[in-house]
Amino acid sequence: MKISEEIQELIRSLSKIPGFGNRSAVRATIALISERENRLRPLLSALAQVDAAISPCPVCGNFDTVSPCGICKNPGRDNKILCIVEDISDLWAMERGNIFSGRYHILGGILSAIQGIEPADLNLSPLPARIRDEGVTEVILALPSTVDAKITSHYIKSLLEGTGVRITELASGIPLGGELSFLDEGTIEEALKGRKTI
Amino acid sequence: MKISEEIQELIRSLSKIPGFGNRSAVRATIALISERENRLRPLLSALAQVDAAISPCPVCGNFDTVSPCGICKNPGRDNKILCIVEDISDLWAMERGNIFSGRYHILGGILSAIQGIEPADLNLSPLPARIRDEGVTEVILALPSTVDAKITSHYIKSLLEGTGVRITELASGIPLGGELSFLDEGTIEEALKGRKTI
Repeated sequence: MKISEEIQELIRSLSKIPGFGNRSAVRATIALISERENRLRPLLSALAQVDAAISPCPVCGNFDTVSPCGICKNPGRDNKILCIVEDISDLWAMERGNIFSGRYHILGGILSAIQGIEPADLNLSPLPARIRDEGVTEVILALPSTVDAKITSHYIKSLLEGTGVRITELASGIPLGGELSFLDEGTIEEALKGRKTI
Repeated sequence: MKISEEIQELIRSLSKIPGFGNRSAVRATIALISERENRLRPLLSALAQVDAAISPCPVCGNFDTVSPCGICKNPGRDNKILCIVEDISDLWAMERGNIFSGRYHILGGILSAIQGIEPADLNLSPLPARIRDEGVTEVILALPSTVDAKITSHYIKSLLEGTGVRITELASGIPLGGELSFLDEGTIEEALKGRKTI
């Protein structure tokens, strides 16, 4: 017996999602078909809803039902401070805490020589114009603490040279609840260098 | 900003797939929306196709576009030999090799005291009638090599007592390409017990 074309197509489509291999896609397919009401139909309808309602914000790259997105549209947010993040999940992480009231710019990645990600692959070109047109005075680089992200930060710094904008990055140090014995020496070194009088 | 309801619903629906946690569901959601043409739409259409076309076979539990399924309908298959498998993925594994020409019966699980899976949770009750009505002479238990599966085998054996059917199980031993130094002693013991004259 050949597995029916419809099932094979579902396995293939699931395999394209990051984190899925062929085996887990097979397992997921069986789970979806076995629990049609509880799993397959809700996923089907959620995908259709997202496809119909969600679009990327032309200004910052966020996903929302409105365009520009709720953050870019919100007059209560401070458009003088622009926070640059790698990905939408980082924007969501920033927003979870209700700790930032500026706006965002989503790069859609990080420069990487190994993965062949170049400046043209990132959402970088509209950045100087955004800073000029929106009167941004500070750019916060909320990027991961990796070598590639440092290179990306330097690239952005050189890109924004001449705009007069202040460029900052997130502090490095011990995470809340972090124990020194579980942390790498690089983190401890950064925390030591950045020590503050109490 | 709150993440839009549509996106949250997609994250929730993906979280229900086995192997997905909340974080991987968030990652998958972003990947799906970011590559709408390449990922989201193909998955949407594959799910809709499966929902419309695929149904479980009322005889064996296989998934197919026809009912009864292609295997149960195929007059070229030997209905005297019935192979009992845990799950549809096991049926697919058996069929990949083109090594078996009988029919199947899918249990939909394995008895498990720890997980609380009882005989009533498995597709067991139609089994004695299938064997009688279809004139089955041999039942092959193609179940995993685990303690729970052994218990399930014993349960099936007692269930089929009196039907006069021959009950067999798959051979234990060294898998093809297996090296003894990488195998557990239980497998080697089974292979030793089952040794054959060459």
